[in-house]
Amino acid sequence: MKKNHYTLGVLQYIPFFYVIWSDDLLSASEINIVTTAFKDDETLTAEDQKTLKGWLNKNKKPSSQELKSWRLTISNAHIKLIEHDAYPLASLAKRLVDRYFSETPINKQLQHIELNLGIQPNHYHHLFDVDVQQEATSEFYSANELDAILKGEFAASVTAFHEVLKNPIFNWEIQRNKEKFRATVLQQVKELAKNNYGAMAYPRAYGGTEDMPGYAFIFENIMYVDGSLAIKFGVQFGLFGGSIQKLGTKYHHDLYLDTTGKAELLGCFAMTETGHGSNVRGIKTTATYEKETDSIIIHTPGNNDNKEYIGNALDATMASVFAQLIVNGKNEGVHAILVPVRNEHHELLPGVKIEDNGYKLGLNGVDNGKIWFNQVRVPRKNLLNKYGDITAEGTYHSEIENPNKRFFTMLGTLVGGRICVARAGLGGAKKALTIAVKHALKRRQFNDNKKIQEDLLMDYPSHQLRLTPPIAKAYVYDVTLQHIMKIYSDDSKTDKREIETQVAGLKSIITWYANDTIQECREACGGKGYLIENRIADLKGDVDIFTTFEGDNNVLLQLAAKGVLSDFRAEFNSAGFASVLKLLTSQLNDKLTTINPIYTNKTDPDHLYNPKFHQHAFEYRTRRLTYTLAMRIRDYIKDGVPSYQAFLKVQTHLLALGKAYSCQLSYEIFTKFTETIGDEKNKALFEKLGTLHALHEIRHDATWYLEQGYIGGPKSKAIRQRVERICTELRPHINTLVDGFGIPEYLITAPIAK
Amino acid sequence: MKKNHYTLGVLQYIPFFYVIWSDDLLSASEINIVTTAFKDDETLTAEDQKTLKGWLNKNKKPSSQELKSWRLTISNAHIKLIEHDAYPLASLAKRLVDRYFSETPINKQLQHIELNLGIQPNHYHHLFDVDVQQEATSEFYSANELDAILKGEFAASVTAFHEVLKNPIFNWEIQRNKEKFRATVLQQVKELAKNNYGAMAYPRAYGGTEDMPGYAFIFENIMYVDGSLAIKFGVQFGLFGGSIQKLGTKYHHDLYLDTTGKAELLGCFAMTETGHGSNVRGIKTTATYEKETDSIIIHTPGNNDNKEYIGNALDATMASVFAQLIVNGKNEGVHAILVPVRNEHHELLPGVKIEDNGYKLGLNGVDNGKIWFNQVRVPRKNLLNKYGDITAEGTYHSEIENPNKRFFTMLGTLVGGRICVARAGLGGAKKALTIAVKHALKRRQFNDNKKIQEDLLMDYPSHQLRLTPPIAKAYVYDVTLQHIMKIYSDDSKTDKREIETQVAGLKSIITWYANDTIQECREACGGKGYLIENRIADLKGDVDIFTTFEGDNNVLLQLAAKGVLSDFRAEFNSAGFASVLKLLTSQLNDKLTTINPIYTNKTDPDHLYNPKFHQHAFEYRTRRLTYTLAMRIRDYIKDGVPSYQAFLKVQTHLLALGKAYSCQLSYEIFTKFTETIGDEKNKALFEKLGTLHALHEIRHDATWYLEQGYIGGPKSKAIRQRVERICTELRPHINTLVDGFGIPEYLITAPIAK
Repeated sequence: MKKNHYTLGVLQYIPFFYVIWSDDLLSASEINIVTTAFKDDETLTAEDQKTLKGWLNKNKKPSSQELKSWRLTISNAHIKLIEHDAYPLASLAKRLVDRYFSETPINKQLQHIELNLGIQPNHYHHLFDVDVQQEATSEFYSANELDAILKGEFAASVTAFHEVLKNPIFNWEIQRNKEKFRATVLQQVKELAKNNYGAMAYPRAYGGTEDMPGYAFIFENIMYVDGSLAIKFGVQFGLFGGSIQKLGTKYHHDLYLDTTGKAELLGCFAMTETGHGSNVRGIKTTATYEKETDSIIIHTPGNNDNKEYIGNALDATMASVFAQLIVNGKNEGVHAILVPVRNEHHELLPGVKIEDNGYKLGLNGVDNGKIWFNQVRVPRKNLLNKYGDITAEGTYHSEIENPNKRFFTMLGTLVGGRICVARAGLGGAKKALTIAVKHALKRRQFNDNKKIQEDLLMDYPSHQLRLTPPIAKAYVYDVTLQHIMKIYSDDSKTDKREIETQVAGLKSIITWYANDTIQECREACGGKGYLIENRIADLKGDVDIFTTFEGDNNVLLQLAAKGVLSDFRAEFNSAGFASVLKLLTSQLNDKLTTINPIYTNKTDPDHLYNPKFHQHAFEYRTRRLTYTLAMRIRDYIKDGVPSYQAFLKVQTHLLALGKAYSCQLSYEIFTKFTETIGDEKNKALFEKLGTLHALHEIRHDATWYLEQGYIGGPKSKAIRQRVERICTELRPHINTLVDGFGIPEYLITAPIAK
Repeated sequence: MKKNHYTLGVLQYIPFFYVIWSDDLLSASEINIVTTAFKDDETLTAEDQKTLKGWLNKNKKPSSQELKSWRLTISNAHIKLIEHDAYPLASLAKRLVDRYFSETPINKQLQHIELNLGIQPNHYHHLFDVDVQQEATSEFYSANELDAILKGEFAASVTAFHEVLKNPIFNWEIQRNKEKFRATVLQQVKELAKNNYGAMAYPRAYGGTEDMPGYAFIFENIMYVDGSLAIKFGVQFGLFGGSIQKLGTKYHHDLYLDTTGKAELLGCFAMTETGHGSNVRGIKTTATYEKETDSIIIHTPGNNDNKEYIGNALDATMASVFAQLIVNGKNEGVHAILVPVRNEHHELLPGVKIEDNGYKLGLNGVDNGKIWFNQVRVPRKNLLNKYGDITAEGTYHSEIENPNKRFFTMLGTLVGGRICVARAGLGGAKKALTIAVKHALKRRQFNDNKKIQEDLLMDYPSHQLRLTPPIAKAYVYDVTLQHIMKIYSDDSKTDKREIETQVAGLKSIITWYANDTIQECREACGGKGYLIENRIADLKGDVDIFTTFEGDNNVLLQLAAKGVLSDFRAEFNSAGFASVLKLLTSQLNDKLTTINPIYTNKTDPDHLYNPKFHQHAFEYRTRRLTYTLAMRIRDYIKDGVPSYQAFLKVQTHLLALGKAYSCQLSYEIFTKFTETIGDEKNKALFEKLGTLHALHEIRHDATWYLEQGYIGGPKSKAIRQRVERICTELRPHINTLVDGFGIPEYLITAPIAK
């Protein structure tokens, strides 16, 4: 029992008076409420009442000495403010009195004041010099360790990049005018180039480090700055520069690669046409070789055959144009040709017409445009001739004789871009999740009848269920994309068909995941999520188109499925009906595992948490869908349905297979990665994240698993319960999990995440 | 056999030459291709070759007389251009020759030219004076009839309203600057008021027709103009005006209702606070009665207690402020008070601070703002005193003694707004669907190897599956919302608890449906859907927040579930744990139907298409979820878990029940409506739409139905197949179905829908 110079009666009111006067908020209503409470308080003597009343005079604030004495009385008691108490202030007052006098009963009048003043701890806890015991956010795991595990060998280079991004030129602000926005983004692109990030993936001779995996990391981190910047950066260095690097030869590299990497030569990647997006093979722009002048004539034949949505179209002086190459009257298929579009005064060259695509749902900092060519002549040497060339004698020549194979080999240049798009989508999802979680750890809504303090959003089971599985998925997809990029960048592997098929599927599921997640985060932040200042709105608009560009997801998934059907021997990106059919028979011989009924109904946690179960389920789904798909197609063909029609009839089945395979692949990569984590504590956490992801996926497709008898009703329910359970278990660590994404605070900027 | 002055050999080339010269596109590549073809064409004589070669001179265009002769030769033959032919132009040429000579074999060289020129019917069909046989869009049903069925008695008034919207003031344009955008929207609101649409729902004495159902129709149609206009209109006349009409009494009506309906008095509805959105009961703004001055003091106590997202905040001169009413030191709960916020010079009044909420994801034509009150004094009479009053003697009085009941009675004013929000969301979905379908009926992608012409997007099964079910749902929800509005507007019913609960659920599922549908339409339109000019992007941004405002969907669904649990006797909008618990026992006695195994596996179409099956499934789901929920809560309570905690633990279960009930309700309303359609043909169509909707919903929840053993694996598969089948069956009518929404073409404006 300590000493103080107030009576018991007065002492218990001190915290209340301190709050009232410190905030200088003494309103008529506060006087009223407190006065009413006094009168009924039996613990007060007449003398106490008089003292307290003296402190309630609106026109006579207690002296600052008095206020200081109150504050000292409170802080000297060394008590805690416990935020989740039903009446935190009354409870603090009781503990204060207990410290100086003996244990006292709860004072109902104080609770009445607290309720009717309606002030909550977040309104006043900064006033007290006491410890505040907030809702627990566990420090069991370390965000830095999680971040290090995810970044691996790239940790140092990403950290260095974060320093570059501290340059005020990258500061985010609301942009509404596209011209101004584009000018800003262009300056940012040049700044990145100045710091050698543009050329990163190019050979050393042209200013780079040939570090494609590192480039992908940088790309995701640029997304944290702004979506338009990421896309403009990707168009300039990845698509335009990438087409020179990968489709061109030394002549082009020497002439253009260095200046491209420095953003001195700005270029665009003119593939998509108004009439032809996904079906690149069907583009209409022609590139006709004219022997007499040894030049190639680029031409837009019809109304819908102009290039469209071409990024960098307004800034570029050169375009990498994809067109049907016609040599001596024969169409040799789609090739890329470098076509100058503007002169040094930034004026359009004769025969070139470029129009702004106008305002878009997002990415308004990217200058997308339409391009028409009217018989534009360029030298023969401008053909990017790595895979197909016109000889000095004016004949076409290619090492790859099969035109289909040639086509998909050239389109392989897109694959790196697809991985980067998936990564940028993932980055958007991570950022939105970070903002939504930080908000949910501050924002309170509703309370128990007995409580003054409302509950944190993050403590609602429905909120946990909407935010925790996407966080787990972000970890899984991060690991997946890193792994895939490593394999893609491995030049020792020459046949890229399998990896290209895999990227097609992963790009689809991950960009859809990103959109769903950002939407969930927007809604989880309520009205605050709708304000541009909180950053989720822009992410929504920017990431939206990721499901469409670099290959429409529905088209890519069908390619992935055809790859699986033909055991990755079908030609990538071709309609490929015939080749798939040829290879189909292997899938028809596939034996299916019969499912043991005990397995179907096994619901113990050891089984449900076992990665072997998840992997088995995913494999079973892929294999079963492959088999039934092959059977269906075979039956159609037997009935005389043409193969094109047969594939149309099974289109939704193809999409399901593409998704199933991508899901299986991603989990396989993640579990293998998890096994490599040395530290047991973090390894267990990664395993748990994998389990949550896997059970959530199985749950998502539970209808199918139930139909197949792979799982029974009780097992299906048990899986649902486990998903909810793991979300609750991860609740104390959720802040650490989003901090583990390693997004620098100065790039988040959202006021609600502060 | 007709006559013409060309040889057979030359005649077959006429359509090709006509296309080449009409478009004036004779490029080097075209000359090359056609010349190569000649040489190998065995049907040509040396003379023919000479003639044709003469027409290929780039510098000597055939005379216009020659061109006219070609055109006449083609048109006189009365042949058709069949767009879905593999080689439409070669096929046309063959039929031309057949008409003038005898049946000829197919000419491979013409096919070669067609393939290598790569021109498609949509590039040239306008050149010919022949019938074009396009992909079939059936005229079996009439869009006008469908429209008439949906609009019912409101057809005439909606048509009249469409005339008003032809005023150029409503012309849509891209708006990027919020100040300019808001000024436009304000002018539009005033124009609508001038035409008496503002006061529509008010009594005749104040310029209205008391036509709330008509108002809802108008509201949906304003959404076709612009989302910001709809919301600003709703804030001014529905929320601000509505609060005066429904919470105020004659004194307020006489003073303000007329000028509000005319948009002379602009007002806002200041309910939501930064710290309190969904939990209205917890708002912190105080309204303290001061007896000495007979006035009420409005005050914002703490940091997070300001009003936020308040629409019309920058234009308003008055606010309907929701605050805790404190009379003689006692908190009488939330009441609304009219508070002038600006003077006649549009300057803020003393004590009032208003800040712009800034840019948002959408609705940037609405001036949302934050409002703080610092001891702002208004006369006692400004209390909207229909349900709670302060007497002249300065004491509080209300006819409704129970404060909970009083609270939910006042909040009932929001219910009409919720129906309107759902309708506006539905309108957004309809518009997006119309645009996406029209685009998919024009846009082609990919083709059979054998075909020149690519397939329409709308002919892809995956495209049918993504667009057709939401169209069916739009019909179901349209009928549902109309019905609900009629019941809500029926003043003979005084206990509104059931309808309010129903609206809470329906608003949630329909606004989510709207967002999902608009997103699907955006993706279905690819890059074109991303351009602002095509209107889907704005719909996405505008409708997004509908899931949050006028009650967050997750919160509303829990209210709906509590209503079902207590048989609609629990208090609406209250936390209501105790009252729900009291009423819970009735649900525990509910007997569940045992499911006959034959029924579980019935897969014949008659059964699957029978509305009785769908209704039974929905009812079973609602009842079963209610029963298991009641059991779970009872068990928690038995174990000593406090009721608030128990409800938290079953939160996801509550959400499932809220959705299930809303789904059941909506289908019940729709099937009843369908029975009233006189015409058998249209009735059958509506039944089919209902079936598609219902099977799609059952499919969506198939995991649950399978877990329960309500359906077996084969039945679940059969349902999936039926969904795909009905989509295909509706394919020829899809254009009619979206035209049946009755959206005037001049309000759609999207270039891709032209």
